Amino acid sequence: MPDNTSLIDHFNWRYATKVFDATRKVNDADLATLEEALRLTPSSFGLQPWHFLIVTDEEIREKLLPLSWNQKQVTECSHYFVLCTRTDVDVDYIDRFVSEIANDRGTTIEELQGYRDVMVDFVSRMPSVERLTWATRQTYLALQRLMDTAALLEIDACPMEGFSAPQYDEVLQLSEKNLTASVCCAIGYRSAEDKYASLAKSRFPKEEVISYL
Amino acid sequence: MPDNTSLIDHFNWRYATKVFDATRKVNDADLATLEEALRLTPSSFGLQPWHFLIVTDEEIREKLLPLSWNQKQVTECSHYFVLCTRTDVDVDYIDRFVSEIANDRGTTIEELQGYRDVMVDFVSRMPSVERLTWATRQTYLALQRLMDTAALLEIDACPMEGFSAPQYDEVLQLSEKNLTASVCCAIGYRSAEDKYASLAKSRFPKEEVISYL
Repeated sequence: MPDNTSLIDHFNWRYATKVFDATRKVNDADLATLEEALRLTPSSFGLQPWHFLIVTDEEIREKLLPLSWNQKQVTECSHYFVLCTRTDVDVDYIDRFVSEIANDRGTTIEELQGYRDVMVDFVSRMPSVERLTWATRQTYLALQRLMDTAALLEIDACPMEGFSAPQYDEVLQLSEKNLTASVCCAIGYRSAEDKYASLAKSRFPKEEVISYL
Repeated sequence: MPDNTSLIDHFNWRYATKVFDATRKVNDADLATLEEALRLTPSSFGLQPWHFLIVTDEEIREKLLPLSWNQKQVTECSHYFVLCTRTDVDVDYIDRFVSEIANDRGTTIEELQGYRDVMVDFVSRMPSVERLTWATRQTYLALQRLMDTAALLEIDACPMEGFSAPQYDEVLQLSEKNLTASVCCAIGYRSAEDKYASLAKSRFPKEEVISYL
């Protein structure tokens, strides 16, 4: 596995890519790794309140472009990921998750009753707005998992919050699937013309962001 | 760097560690890597609206334990990370960030004026509750960066949302630093007695969480 220096080198290597080389595509093996990395992302109670849409269709991407401040990454990247959050994390959903655990672990739903009840209690307490806020934070874990997996595979990425979620939901027909677009991530390879690639990464010094108690 | 299989192996290896080996401590080199990985975490506009508190003091940890549903990870892990979100991301803060960029890139504040104005406009539009919600999502990026860096170094971690943030803020005197505790992460090494270590990871199948358009 990576040594400490190599890890940090990769975290320094990544940056929010502004210009992608539209001719280069992520290969199937790397794509499968990004997908599996996303699928394995941890989440609160393991509830996975998300869905990941990978947009390759050019026409759809053209439609998304003006809904995304015309950021060219949408159409020029290799694969455009729309990370969606579920709007239906309720008792039925939890029961579906509990069935999945029972299945994955060869145990019974009865044995998982205590865990189920804790989750139902936790989720039921939250008004729906708060529930979506909580679920969206989990989707951001997936975003970081995606960005870092890409960086470690030396694939470029650009996280994107600048888009109209209501319009994405409409164009991508997300509402009827109980989903809403939370954050996007363009994936591919930097163009030699991206002047942002060579800018020094700017971060506050360690003393400002880390302290011990 | 890691090949695809090794990456996925590490993501499968990690789990939310319930029982830590209280005798094992993360060494200084690995700790420095975790710190630097956190510091380099990407965020919206690069604004880094966070602070990372690493709690090693045993007395403080004992105080946090009952505020954390008595989850023993708080006291038994090697290093207990409290990921805090800034509550003061305002024009002054943005100006401080712009100075940092000017400094890091050897450019002038004047040249960064356009970028500054976009950030000020973005942040000023949000009511303070929404601003904290947005900033907290960034802190979750840092949480995933921390968990995955640990996993790649074969260090165990347990993300923890189950604690009283208002009481943490009081005990850790966070409010006076314009911070609030958003999420925690116990870091260290799994105990041989943690039965959760051998449970199959439960995730929905790929078809349910990933689709192409």
